[in-house]
Amino acid sequence: MNQNIPSFEVIEGGGVTSASGFEAAGVTCGLKRSGKADLALLYSRTDCNSAGTFTSNLFPAAPVVLCKKRVAGPAGIRAVVVNSGVANACTGELGMENARAVAKLAAETLGIEEDQALSCSTGRIGVQLPMDKLAAGIKAAAAAKKPDGGHEAALAIMTTDTRPKECAVSFFLDGKKVTVGGMTKGAGMIAPHMYPAVPHATMLCFLTTDAASDNASLTRFLADAVEVSFNRITVDNDMSTNDTCMLFANGESGAKIVYDGSEPAQLFADALRHVVQTLAKGMVMDGEGSSKFVEVLVTGAKDAAQAHICAKAIADSMLCKTAWFGCDPNWGRILAAAGYSGAQFSPENVSLDYNDKPVVRGGMDAGTPEAELSELMKTGSFTVHIDLGEGVASDTMWTSDITYDYVKINADYHT
Amino acid sequence: MNQNIPSFEVIEGGGVTSASGFEAAGVTCGLKRSGKADLALLYSRTDCNSAGTFTSNLFPAAPVVLCKKRVAGPAGIRAVVVNSGVANACTGELGMENARAVAKLAAETLGIEEDQALSCSTGRIGVQLPMDKLAAGIKAAAAAKKPDGGHEAALAIMTTDTRPKECAVSFFLDGKKVTVGGMTKGAGMIAPHMYPAVPHATMLCFLTTDAASDNASLTRFLADAVEVSFNRITVDNDMSTNDTCMLFANGESGAKIVYDGSEPAQLFADALRHVVQTLAKGMVMDGEGSSKFVEVLVTGAKDAAQAHICAKAIADSMLCKTAWFGCDPNWGRILAAAGYSGAQFSPENVSLDYNDKPVVRGGMDAGTPEAELSELMKTGSFTVHIDLGEGVASDTMWTSDITYDYVKINADYHT
Repeated sequence: MNQNIPSFEVIEGGGVTSASGFEAAGVTCGLKRSGKADLALLYSRTDCNSAGTFTSNLFPAAPVVLCKKRVAGPAGIRAVVVNSGVANACTGELGMENARAVAKLAAETLGIEEDQALSCSTGRIGVQLPMDKLAAGIKAAAAAKKPDGGHEAALAIMTTDTRPKECAVSFFLDGKKVTVGGMTKGAGMIAPHMYPAVPHATMLCFLTTDAASDNASLTRFLADAVEVSFNRITVDNDMSTNDTCMLFANGESGAKIVYDGSEPAQLFADALRHVVQTLAKGMVMDGEGSSKFVEVLVTGAKDAAQAHICAKAIADSMLCKTAWFGCDPNWGRILAAAGYSGAQFSPENVSLDYNDKPVVRGGMDAGTPEAELSELMKTGSFTVHIDLGEGVASDTMWTSDITYDYVKINADYHT
Repeated sequence: MNQNIPSFEVIEGGGVTSASGFEAAGVTCGLKRSGKADLALLYSRTDCNSAGTFTSNLFPAAPVVLCKKRVAGPAGIRAVVVNSGVANACTGELGMENARAVAKLAAETLGIEEDQALSCSTGRIGVQLPMDKLAAGIKAAAAAKKPDGGHEAALAIMTTDTRPKECAVSFFLDGKKVTVGGMTKGAGMIAPHMYPAVPHATMLCFLTTDAASDNASLTRFLADAVEVSFNRITVDNDMSTNDTCMLFANGESGAKIVYDGSEPAQLFADALRHVVQTLAKGMVMDGEGSSKFVEVLVTGAKDAAQAHICAKAIADSMLCKTAWFGCDPNWGRILAAAGYSGAQFSPENVSLDYNDKPVVRGGMDAGTPEAELSELMKTGSFTVHIDLGEGVASDTMWTSDITYDYVKINADYHT
């Protein structure tokens, strides 16, 4: 509903290798029972400055520990190896050694320094990486990497995802074309977390740009972008051990961006926000077993924090999510969730709309026939807008429904 | 596992009318589409002192507002009318008038004062009570009430419950037999809340005793009992608009109990605790669509609050609950939940057991074959015991799994 003309152009079919100088590959090394691609390599021809944000789970996976150490460090990052099928979490010292060994193997194969390589994992917790398979996979990926390999990489990082999630945009700065792109995976164990801007999901997100920037600026751009994207989605309110979101900038466009509030900074922030919001919404739409995409909009809250806890309570409510699955307008569950969220308001001032249909006025039924609301829900994508009538603060969350398939996928999950 | 000989005797088939001087009835007045009993009356031959604890939802149902005003007040309570099928929540001033009218009708029919009668409702939110049906139901229930009517009342307050939940025990004090009994309903919208001791669930719980006690003592006995029962269960982490738990004492046994730490107080507290814990566990076992009863035991926590948030995170985790449904030992999800719970600990000190089987030692797989753990889960009832290795505090939560039936029931809920 943005009335402004966007300052960037969306690249049709774009992704993590749309920016200049990035290459990628996706190969099968035998970690997934399905035989599908399970190892991705992301590579930059030149050194990248970088930023990362990671799970705050007390059981961070070994590769998370490794990435945290190396990202935004002095060595310019050149490569990331990502495997799906095994999370390498709760794997002790051997797991840590393996995470380091994966990065080392990649570095040797690619002819870069060891600390210029990273490893990421997603999949089952508590299982050690089968290093022989990984070693073969890394060699194959290094041989297969190509400038348009982003899509293959996006496929290889999937677990219970049903489709790859990619996006890229470009804009011009002083005649130089700057591209920002990315890919993400994540369909379950998805929950946001507001302070600090840490994405909490079984999500891995890799963002690339050919802008030139410094680590400190990239860290702030990334934090801002995560705050309005991955921290605004929820599927099941479970925070993973492996959540990782990293941004790599290799500078090949020749355009320099600093986090300084200038117009170039704004252009870059807008482009990055579009990419991460597209990826985040894509995660919700592809949420495990999901059949609905629901935008929960809270307005009229006392302050931003209250707007957020209210939106989050509704977006996380099992009873709301199952009602949405059933196309049951059951607005009482939405009001009940708002009522226990901790947000302060007077029940008699509350309004609720589904899209443009009034559902509740003055805390009571607004009289729109249930059948009309149910029809609207059957479209598979709608907005639940609650106004608390207290103030002017607002917040938005994107969420999915809870379906039989969600239960099926998670009751019987072996990648 | 209590090695002590209990100080009370469980009354086989006992319930809310086991204590002397209480009568009850359950009748059909046409609120449920199923045609099953939907109106219960609980009656005491003599005035009761009382205590109550209620939802803290900002949308309390009209009858909750009424009960809050009258319970533990100066008028001795004599009767409670409970209807299922319609929650009388989010119903505005008319809903409030109707709640008062129900109590008034009951009072007139029974020949007691208006403020000695209470009304409670459970069912769909946002719908007005059909007062003509209620009026007929109240008359029928008043005519049908009897000293052994507890079971019929327990059936009439059910919504998605599949079975009534009742319990009663008795003990002797100075040669006088004191009985404590109760009934509860609640299968969904069930979530605990620790401070203050407020049960948060679509639960209605009615407790009766023929002990003599004062309102202030009853309030404290009830708070203690709720804290170790209803505040220790979770089904779906949704807090209802109608949660109500009330305790009525008519004094007919002649035994006087004061909340003063004395031996009689302890005897009464033990009896009451047994009754509410039995009812609370019964609610979890009968949780919507539930196929497993899981006790989550956290030990070795730094303090009680940390033990509780850790137990609650595991007990509420969608991914743990769906894995339990699938008899998938997937211990990584339990550790992940502990890791994001907010409890502080060192991953390498964490142990996990399913019943007496070691699952995790030192934060890693303990080597018990998955098949053995899966077999144990198939029994339908097991304990998940995590030791954080930090201190000596512990906590217990009782929870259920999330099944296809949970989704089915809630995607298509019209009582």
